[in-house]
Amino acid sequence: MTTSQPLQGKTVAILAADGVEQIELTSPREALEQAGATTHLISLEAGQIQSMKGDIEPKDKYSVDKAVAGASADDYDALVLPGGTVNPDKLRLSDDAMSFVRSFYEGGKPIAAICHGPWSLSQIGGVTGLKLTSWPSLRRELELGGAQWVDQEVVQDKGIVTSRKPDDLPAFNRQIVELFAASGRYQR
Amino acid sequence: MTTSQPLQGKTVAILAADGVEQIELTSPREALEQAGATTHLISLEAGQIQSMKGDIEPKDKYSVDKAVAGASADDYDALVLPGGTVNPDKLRLSDDAMSFVRSFYEGGKPIAAICHGPWSLSQIGGVTGLKLTSWPSLRRELELGGAQWVDQEVVQDKGIVTSRKPDDLPAFNRQIVELFAASGRYQR
Repeated sequence: MTTSQPLQGKTVAILAADGVEQIELTSPREALEQAGATTHLISLEAGQIQSMKGDIEPKDKYSVDKAVAGASADDYDALVLPGGTVNPDKLRLSDDAMSFVRSFYEGGKPIAAICHGPWSLSQIGGVTGLKLTSWPSLRRELELGGAQWVDQEVVQDKGIVTSRKPDDLPAFNRQIVELFAASGRYQR
Repeated sequence: MTTSQPLQGKTVAILAADGVEQIELTSPREALEQAGATTHLISLEAGQIQSMKGDIEPKDKYSVDKAVAGASADDYDALVLPGGTVNPDKLRLSDDAMSFVRSFYEGGKPIAAICHGPWSLSQIGGVTGLKLTSWPSLRRELELGGAQWVDQEVVQDKGIVTSRKPDDLPAFNRQIVELFAASGRYQR
């Protein structure tokens, strides 16, 4: 990086619902904002979402910037999909949420998903032929969907960054800042 | 039924972990015990498990009767797999838990799974060619695994009963009491 604000002028969508793992929402968001990006928390509805620690301990609530039905991928340079088991399990049942994810995927825009976040990519049929990682409970579905699943702290393929768990956040955050700064468009 | 205690003398294993949906644990358990069965709550470890309501509101804790590593399917006539998103997401990562489920499956014993419970059947490769239902978020994985997924309150195929959600519990409970009372062994 030749600048300390490599994401200046960029706007990043973070798509999450109730049950998001708190640190997987706050840590990437902070890294992106420190790098100069504007971030918007997009969710199923306006209002607040309930974050969790370790999936079963309720933590802080976070204000939603925009409901996904009214959001357009055209307004964003990149997409982040945090984990927490319950969060993407809810997102995948929303046609609006999956259309939003598909627009980034098909538009070749950078996408980052951690932990259970890759479920949204699986739901839109976006993991076929993709090298990726995730929380290990997703492995079976992702492999059935044609992904090459690997056990690494961070993986990047076709402009899609994935990590396994909160411990991987330092590597995940470094990689997404670098990827989002590159302003590439990716064939998928 | 010709008796009010059709499950007298039978012992049923209920396999669940932290994050179990409370009503999907308590309601089948009560129905089975009212029908005369003895039930054991089996989990990943001894102690207690944390139940939830709607996946994100912590409710009561329940005492574990036996850790799965020390449990044998030989001691049980049937298996119940409750839902709650986080619960089976944890179970599927435990070799001991999946061996326990596989013993029921391969032994042809009756199995019942509700909501997210069928993930355990998917993890052991047990849904291929099976007609079943589940919480709709599982549909993609189950279909990728070769299941015939249907949207019904209760489904029975090859001695495996499945339902979608808490609203289906009355139909689920009636069906599992009838199935477990039949004492059949099922080809899978």
